[in-house]
Amino acid sequence: MKQILVRSFIRFKSSLPPLSTLEKFNFRVSTHTINQVNENIDEYLNQPIVLNGHLNRKPRLMAKNSFAEIRDSSGNSVQLIFRPESTGEKHFQTIESSMVEESCSVEGLVKLKETRDGSKQWELLVTNYQRLNESNLDAARLENLKHTNPQDLPPHFRYLQLRSKKYQDNLKIRSKLSNLIRSTFIESHDFTEIETPLLFKSTPEGAREFLVPTRSSNLFYALPQSPQQYKQILMSSGFTRYFQLAKCFRDEDLRADRQPEFTQVDLEMSFVSSSDQVQIVVEDVIYQVFNKGAELPMYIVNEKGNLIELKNFNNDKTQFTKLTYQDALSKYGIDKPDLRFDLAFKNLSAYFTNNNEDFPIVEACVLKQGLVDGKIPKALTDSLNYNRRKPFVIGIKKPADIKWYRKFVEKGILTLRGEETAIDNFLSVEVGDIVAFSDRMEIPYENPTPLGKFRQLAISEYDNKWQRPIETSEGLIDEYDASKVFVGSWVVDFPLFNPTDVSNGDEAYPSYDKSNFESTHHPFTMVKTEDYKKLSSDPLAAHGEHYDLVVNGVEVGGGSRRVHDAKLQQFIFEEILGIENYRQLFGHLLDALSMGCPPHAGLAIGFDRLCAMVVGSSSIRDVIAFPKNQSGVDMVVESPTSVDEKVLKEYFIKSL
Amino acid sequence: MKQILVRSFIRFKSSLPPLSTLEKFNFRVSTHTINQVNENIDEYLNQPIVLNGHLNRKPRLMAKNSFAEIRDSSGNSVQLIFRPESTGEKHFQTIESSMVEESCSVEGLVKLKETRDGSKQWELLVTNYQRLNESNLDAARLENLKHTNPQDLPPHFRYLQLRSKKYQDNLKIRSKLSNLIRSTFIESHDFTEIETPLLFKSTPEGAREFLVPTRSSNLFYALPQSPQQYKQILMSSGFTRYFQLAKCFRDEDLRADRQPEFTQVDLEMSFVSSSDQVQIVVEDVIYQVFNKGAELPMYIVNEKGNLIELKNFNNDKTQFTKLTYQDALSKYGIDKPDLRFDLAFKNLSAYFTNNNEDFPIVEACVLKQGLVDGKIPKALTDSLNYNRRKPFVIGIKKPADIKWYRKFVEKGILTLRGEETAIDNFLSVEVGDIVAFSDRMEIPYENPTPLGKFRQLAISEYDNKWQRPIETSEGLIDEYDASKVFVGSWVVDFPLFNPTDVSNGDEAYPSYDKSNFESTHHPFTMVKTEDYKKLSSDPLAAHGEHYDLVVNGVEVGGGSRRVHDAKLQQFIFEEILGIENYRQLFGHLLDALSMGCPPHAGLAIGFDRLCAMVVGSSSIRDVIAFPKNQSGVDMVVESPTSVDEKVLKEYFIKSL
Repeated sequence: MKQILVRSFIRFKSSLPPLSTLEKFNFRVSTHTINQVNENIDEYLNQPIVLNGHLNRKPRLMAKNSFAEIRDSSGNSVQLIFRPESTGEKHFQTIESSMVEESCSVEGLVKLKETRDGSKQWELLVTNYQRLNESNLDAARLENLKHTNPQDLPPHFRYLQLRSKKYQDNLKIRSKLSNLIRSTFIESHDFTEIETPLLFKSTPEGAREFLVPTRSSNLFYALPQSPQQYKQILMSSGFTRYFQLAKCFRDEDLRADRQPEFTQVDLEMSFVSSSDQVQIVVEDVIYQVFNKGAELPMYIVNEKGNLIELKNFNNDKTQFTKLTYQDALSKYGIDKPDLRFDLAFKNLSAYFTNNNEDFPIVEACVLKQGLVDGKIPKALTDSLNYNRRKPFVIGIKKPADIKWYRKFVEKGILTLRGEETAIDNFLSVEVGDIVAFSDRMEIPYENPTPLGKFRQLAISEYDNKWQRPIETSEGLIDEYDASKVFVGSWVVDFPLFNPTDVSNGDEAYPSYDKSNFESTHHPFTMVKTEDYKKLSSDPLAAHGEHYDLVVNGVEVGGGSRRVHDAKLQQFIFEEILGIENYRQLFGHLLDALSMGCPPHAGLAIGFDRLCAMVVGSSSIRDVIAFPKNQSGVDMVVESPTSVDEKVLKEYFIKSL
Repeated sequence: MKQILVRSFIRFKSSLPPLSTLEKFNFRVSTHTINQVNENIDEYLNQPIVLNGHLNRKPRLMAKNSFAEIRDSSGNSVQLIFRPESTGEKHFQTIESSMVEESCSVEGLVKLKETRDGSKQWELLVTNYQRLNESNLDAARLENLKHTNPQDLPPHFRYLQLRSKKYQDNLKIRSKLSNLIRSTFIESHDFTEIETPLLFKSTPEGAREFLVPTRSSNLFYALPQSPQQYKQILMSSGFTRYFQLAKCFRDEDLRADRQPEFTQVDLEMSFVSSSDQVQIVVEDVIYQVFNKGAELPMYIVNEKGNLIELKNFNNDKTQFTKLTYQDALSKYGIDKPDLRFDLAFKNLSAYFTNNNEDFPIVEACVLKQGLVDGKIPKALTDSLNYNRRKPFVIGIKKPADIKWYRKFVEKGILTLRGEETAIDNFLSVEVGDIVAFSDRMEIPYENPTPLGKFRQLAISEYDNKWQRPIETSEGLIDEYDASKVFVGSWVVDFPLFNPTDVSNGDEAYPSYDKSNFESTHHPFTMVKTEDYKKLSSDPLAAHGEHYDLVVNGVEVGGGSRRVHDAKLQQFIFEEILGIENYRQLFGHLLDALSMGCPPHAGLAIGFDRLCAMVVGSSSIRDVIAFPKNQSGVDMVVESPTSVDEKVLKEYFIKSL
């Protein structure tokens, strides 16, 4: 964790400030917002009004008149004009010492403003200007940043960032969405919001939790990574429809736009006999968020592979596009494919073998006319853009390149299985195309696969390409702004377990220990009925009753039907996952299941990420008032901090 | 912290449970709730329905028919009848091994049930009974408790407690109230809900916080006791109307029905020039909670001292009864008086002196006809019921006792200042009355005063006595159920600072160090305008712009106008409170104020306590799903726990 910068600060004289300080508390409250006047200038013309707000720009003091600009809480601003004939002398003096961002209460008359373009605008002829608090913002650089790139203001000036319209809007939309989500659950689906404890139990195997020392020797709470166990206990407590906007905590590296604390829309339903019952509720919530919350249409993929707008939520069946894990990986090389884009892979295993038993599937992705000025865009081949392995990427620059595979056959990387003509017909590659090929396991544990990563890079590299057409009653729309199109989908039938990754990082291919299993999601997920016996015979071949909610390539949520049979749950803990201390970690859950806990299923949605999507931002920091930075530091209040040994003693701990 | 009891548990065989386990996941979902059928039995008569729920009682197996009872999620239950002619043999076998509280799905026909009183009731003639999960509840004692006193079930069976109608209702009302509060803020008052960080900063002087170690040596977060500082920074961030249902944490003794984590309805408003602006919003929220949320009327005290029902929220002015700290203490001996009851004190200082400079005010409380069978109820005199000091309590058993004060004068405890007749006229004591008297400081820092505590004891000792009449258009109502009457009031004009209590506990009177000040509420509260100069001349004489929301003797919330002037705030930290490291603790706040932070004011409501009041419970544990016990232990999941030294090392700490 980086050292916190020591900031310079002003230290005031230690005497009671003058009596005039009281004037800051005694002022006229705004009678109007700027927006109200904007919407009906004529009505207010020559009327006296009071505005409260901040000086948006440094005042301009001219020989006769002076000018300033006030911004109010609606985020709008208007010009203030100080005229000797209307504005008292003392207000000129006040404005002379004014700094940008000071807060003020201003009285004046609404006047028409001359504009070059003839549009109707107004300004406020000031009759009274009262400063409500001074500002220290004396750096012109900061004032500029404030107007142009508020996100680039120094992070300890978060309050200045937040005053900008972007952040005001973002956090107001977040508030609107959380309220909308709550009313959808409560009013449309009869859910109960229940708060579960944040002082939870330490689960020593999980290295991603925060501990909380108590005032007893060696007794610790832990902050929850999710309310998973409490909500399952709630299912054993007679609540049939639970939800919560829950605070969760994860102590992990904060790269990849993560935060140590985050908010989760958490739900669980009992007496559920099918995943659809959960998915239907979630589809309504997501549909409301995009349609009502942000007036953004939602789409699904129809049987022709086109996008069609989702016109209504349906209480009887799920409507989001469903695809299996195996399909998602085979077609798009990732379990959270961005379905706004087509661009599916072709399986070449009928034509080639790569002589690799563990990674036998050879597949290709063809970017039709993908060459740019005859070249492959660098982003598609840059190793830094790939996790470990990357595919072979070939530009079809001349007719001979259509036989792109020949050189890989020569090198022994590929072995031909059939006629070249069959391959050529199957792929129908032309000059101008880019071919990428790679190999993968039958059930790929690399996620994304090398080719899946290639597809993501291709999607972000090209504008308005590979997009699925939108099907409307008036025909197909091929060109559209993909940032305003949201495709809802479910990915299902995940493998219930993964083998442990034992790669050392240097090998060409990852390697797995297929005798040691990990839960793909968590150990509470039920196996699919048809795979039940595989739990003892071949756990890696068993699929789980898990479902991921994916919107535009983002995993917005994930859920599952749970194991409510205590014996089966114990078998999974003990025999499949080999958790020796399962009783210590999960005994409370087994007890709760044993008390007639009904069948149940649920889901959790990442609320920060969902808000970021809705406001069109790529970072969750844009929808969190006071995010931590990548070192976990809150630059506004300067935490975390060191704590005196004496204080630590009260918690029976000592710093190392 | 007490050792957690080790519970016995069943350890299952470590083999995959039989395939029949899958039947638990495959069942018919309920077609109706019991309540639906209750409301229209005729419509459903002889119709087939499916119910999901738990067995509410142990089945009774009879020679021919068998009987059971199912309880569904509506909390209602209905009799199940198993008849050989309708119910398959295998269902009899199932029910034979059934335990109370197992979960089940039952199909059957709605049949009329014969009742002794001739009322129309129904039962379900079972055609199919499917067990969805076994229960371990084999102790008859537990089954009895479940029906009679669910709160007395062992706390690790919280899920059984929660299945009872009382807890189901309580938590559903809590959910309803939080939703109602949110919609009132958002829809009626244009507030924005903003989440503030829970990983906050350690403030070493506060001994009541929880620390959170990080994975860096000697760097800690702390869990917030309230979002106070963040919400003030939000006021400097351009948000004019903020609220949040915020999680707060306090590491303190848990007697007095407190919890280490609790929920607070937190709000703050900027560009506020009077406390009324905040109070009006809060009155609406509270009015909605009681009236809309629970259909409980709210009352205020009118000028005649009677209660009148509050018919409407008023957006233009505050309506709750307002009284000053000094009035509250003089009349009722506490800053949170229960105004449903009259019973005000009489100041006897004109008639007596007690020769105690520091505690010069002699006052009495007379319980008219308070003697019970000629005796003083023991609760009024039991020392255990008082904090430190207690008043003298005298029963007026015979005419001579009307001169009750004579013996105190003889003993030198009181000195007469005037004629006995004047006293007698002033108090007009009669045989059958109880007189209690005590003394206090001019500005009492004992809160409640001894006499205030006496008043509380008297209120809870007598039924339907001392109640203020309710004034209606049809006259006064003297007798009513006080538990359904809620009186809203504001207590204002608190002293801004208290002297430090330096009593050693053995003295008759508490003693104070009047050169060392503590904030009565917190250091961010603004002084009342008229007392500004006292901040330097006599801080103890200064009153603060603080307001407490008091309902029925419970401090439901507290708030204040804040200091938004950085210089004044620094003066209070440094010069009045002598906080040497104020820059380290509060520098971020001073910085935020310095950046043109507008005037602001706010309030926080204890949400758990409010919910408990609404459901008529005296304990917040009744409205919290998983409360900690008085040792801070969560008996359900068994936390806190010990943590391995190896794990602690990752957080750079060591257990002592």
